[in-house]
Amino acid sequence: MTPEEFRRHGKQVVDWIADYLAGIETHPVLSQVKPGEIRQALPASPPERGEPFESVLSDLGRILLPGITHWQHPSFFAYFPSNASGPAILGDLLSSGLGVQGMLWVTSPACTELETVVVDWLAELIGLPERFRTDAAGGGVIQDSASSACLVALLAALHRASGGRVAAEGIDRRYTVYVTSQTHSSLEKAARIAGLGAAGVRVVDVDPRTLAMDPSHLRRLLAEDVAADAVPAMVCATVGTTSTTAVDPVPAIGQACREHGVWLHVDAAYAGVAAICPELRWLNDGVAEYADSYATNPHKWLLTTFDCGVLWTADRAPLVGALSILPEYLRNAATSSGSVVDYRDWQVPLGRRFRALKLWSVIRWYGAEGLREHIRKGVALAAELAEQVGTDPGFELHEQHPLGLVCFRPLWPGLDAAAADRATLRLMELLNASGSMYLTHTKIADRVVLRLAVGAAATERRHVEQAWAQIRWERQALAATLP
Amino acid sequence: MTPEEFRRHGKQVVDWIADYLAGIETHPVLSQVKPGEIRQALPASPPERGEPFESVLSDLGRILLPGITHWQHPSFFAYFPSNASGPAILGDLLSSGLGVQGMLWVTSPACTELETVVVDWLAELIGLPERFRTDAAGGGVIQDSASSACLVALLAALHRASGGRVAAEGIDRRYTVYVTSQTHSSLEKAARIAGLGAAGVRVVDVDPRTLAMDPSHLRRLLAEDVAADAVPAMVCATVGTTSTTAVDPVPAIGQACREHGVWLHVDAAYAGVAAICPELRWLNDGVAEYADSYATNPHKWLLTTFDCGVLWTADRAPLVGALSILPEYLRNAATSSGSVVDYRDWQVPLGRRFRALKLWSVIRWYGAEGLREHIRKGVALAAELAEQVGTDPGFELHEQHPLGLVCFRPLWPGLDAAAADRATLRLMELLNASGSMYLTHTKIADRVVLRLAVGAAATERRHVEQAWAQIRWERQALAATLP
Repeated sequence: MTPEEFRRHGKQVVDWIADYLAGIETHPVLSQVKPGEIRQALPASPPERGEPFESVLSDLGRILLPGITHWQHPSFFAYFPSNASGPAILGDLLSSGLGVQGMLWVTSPACTELETVVVDWLAELIGLPERFRTDAAGGGVIQDSASSACLVALLAALHRASGGRVAAEGIDRRYTVYVTSQTHSSLEKAARIAGLGAAGVRVVDVDPRTLAMDPSHLRRLLAEDVAADAVPAMVCATVGTTSTTAVDPVPAIGQACREHGVWLHVDAAYAGVAAICPELRWLNDGVAEYADSYATNPHKWLLTTFDCGVLWTADRAPLVGALSILPEYLRNAATSSGSVVDYRDWQVPLGRRFRALKLWSVIRWYGAEGLREHIRKGVALAAELAEQVGTDPGFELHEQHPLGLVCFRPLWPGLDAAAADRATLRLMELLNASGSMYLTHTKIADRVVLRLAVGAAATERRHVEQAWAQIRWERQALAATLP
Repeated sequence: MTPEEFRRHGKQVVDWIADYLAGIETHPVLSQVKPGEIRQALPASPPERGEPFESVLSDLGRILLPGITHWQHPSFFAYFPSNASGPAILGDLLSSGLGVQGMLWVTSPACTELETVVVDWLAELIGLPERFRTDAAGGGVIQDSASSACLVALLAALHRASGGRVAAEGIDRRYTVYVTSQTHSSLEKAARIAGLGAAGVRVVDVDPRTLAMDPSHLRRLLAEDVAADAVPAMVCATVGTTSTTAVDPVPAIGQACREHGVWLHVDAAYAGVAAICPELRWLNDGVAEYADSYATNPHKWLLTTFDCGVLWTADRAPLVGALSILPEYLRNAATSSGSVVDYRDWQVPLGRRFRALKLWSVIRWYGAEGLREHIRKGVALAAELAEQVGTDPGFELHEQHPLGLVCFRPLWPGLDAAAADRATLRLMELLNASGSMYLTHTKIADRVVLRLAVGAAATERRHVEQAWAQIRWERQALAATLP
């Protein structure tokens, strides 16, 4: 494709996306296709000869769009939001257009240095301590996801806990990692990948009301494991759990970590970016004093198209120690001088996109003020919804909702717990099948609850109000059909 | 940013990229900035208020562009190419515009099903066996890189070798992985990440002429390790090594793997896509019979903007066994039915972009014919260059150059080996500092050689000819200044 062909088709694609975003409410939020339907509509073999780009766009609309679940739809309330925004899309387009690799400083110095600048900017915006800045001993790096961030943090923690023996000799004794039942599953996945196995993961109790980690149980487990000759490698505290946005008590957890010399990783994948608002800065209490590493995802709630997770560490030496290997074909003068950062040593893959461009575009377009406004809108709408749920006799509200997520349980008088849970799931299926919203569920105290996460960039008050009205109406209609 | 603002700025960005690509030859290939220069030109703190998008574009040109090493420049001959192309950039733009997550089938069925279709297409194009297709027991999946692909393959191999104990209990005994001195460093990185340590990596001898793995030495090492109570988990054969594009003898290696029940991973990161040409189909000899997994990167030589590596496995069960965890908040009817693929279980991260769109766009725009033409152009230009190098008395050609990479050593009469190697590196620095090309080096038999990799999408015969003329001229000029 020549530059002039690119210019022409590029503008077609921009128009396609602008039209898609302008008309997104015309689509059902959750795709209604059956398994295999999209696949069967596509040719089983690739074309022998090239086709016009218009065919791609036409098949996208005709075949693929029905199979899309619209994450940018204002009535997308499932999981957590995965915000895209104009400046992020365009920043990422510039990254694709430049097509550079940022594996080493020398392979595109601006790719590394802009990343250093924007992760330092973000650290400042959310109030992370100075020692997490790249001009101190620590530093930040963009990862594809919080899953990869926690794996990388665990590898650094193991490097420190083992004095480098894990990288050299492999898992040579019993290393343990501490989570709760509410910690994201990526922590267990990281422990499995790193060779600790599921058995290396200790599950600390939570407070049954707040679902936050119980620091006294953590202390007990740490002491027991040390007595049993295990080596506690990392504790993961979560700020804003995936299930209910519970906030673990980082200061008390950090104190226990410090006493045992254990690496504290703070997983604030969803909630961390909210600390950009001074009134939510408490989310990071204890981080400055105690955290060895910290992760949050601008690609969730900060308008930056996936993938853009950021991991900071207070000491980059164990990170690089765990992950650096320098074959001859990657040697270069800048690396040898020690005066540059080579981000390949801060991540699992070697190659890396110029992802800093999209975060840079977002921060510049919205400014700190605009980003705060976006977070505040989500928090306010969620608070309004929670107020309504809490006063409705047909529902039970989960009282903890500090951010954009509201968890609640429809009540089904006359049904036992198991039947009520089935009715709740059935209600969710009906709502999602209607196409007018998408929400997901979790369990609290072994009971099914619905999760409604506000925070898609396009969501306005009317979308939340409409959703709540429909939920109430559908619950009544379903209740009427139950025995 | 509203859809209409996106439409306006999107077209500005498309114009910016079209102009950049049309004028790419006006830039020095390798950025000439000093460490810290870009960083110092950027504000230390983020803006409080939003700025117009034009400021982003203007700073991109003014501040960042001098810090870019232009991977799409026709005179970029370093590392391996990392091809971008118009249809790939636009496919990826569509992915950003849709902004969907493909972690589960249900979170966007088209994201999963198009991926299944295009990796099956690619398997067909490069002649991979039927059992690697997703409609058999195996399947393909897009990874960010061959590094992640080999990590995931290793985790599957460990799962099989340990009967699932590694995922449950962690590294419980000595597992070993087999590579050569020429294998990509990502294999050692994967072994370290997976808890085997560098000590778990066995280095098999290579044939000193071809630099390909010696299968008889592999057999010896396997037998010795088994006798010493280690568990051989995976052998990595490379088709097209990073250093010199050496091709390991997959059939003989596969036979040894089969006898010992060891997982065979074939790393064809760079070369695999070349098998799209029937005359290069020999690259995959032995894969159909013996490989348990196979990886190649369309983002290297197949015109698909990074990141797009593809990993296939003949049996997806151990892959999913190693990586699957299902928390309540991800449960859904489609997953429970077992009738869908959830690609989150085939990779390290949970979240995933709709990367299939860019590979789909590329295959449709170019067609199989257009892709073959692109590969053939690179191979032909490299062969022409090798012919000239081989007949020039000032240079020694590395005779193995089956693909787009040519390795050669300038001769420095009168200098001993160490001084000659320094002169070669100095020559490379002079060439790269000139801005008119970028090439890198490696070592063969402990001597420094230059690597010139042809394959950037924009490269024509004149660029290779100009580079070769300049290399000859600079060698003579430098030789004249030496004692």
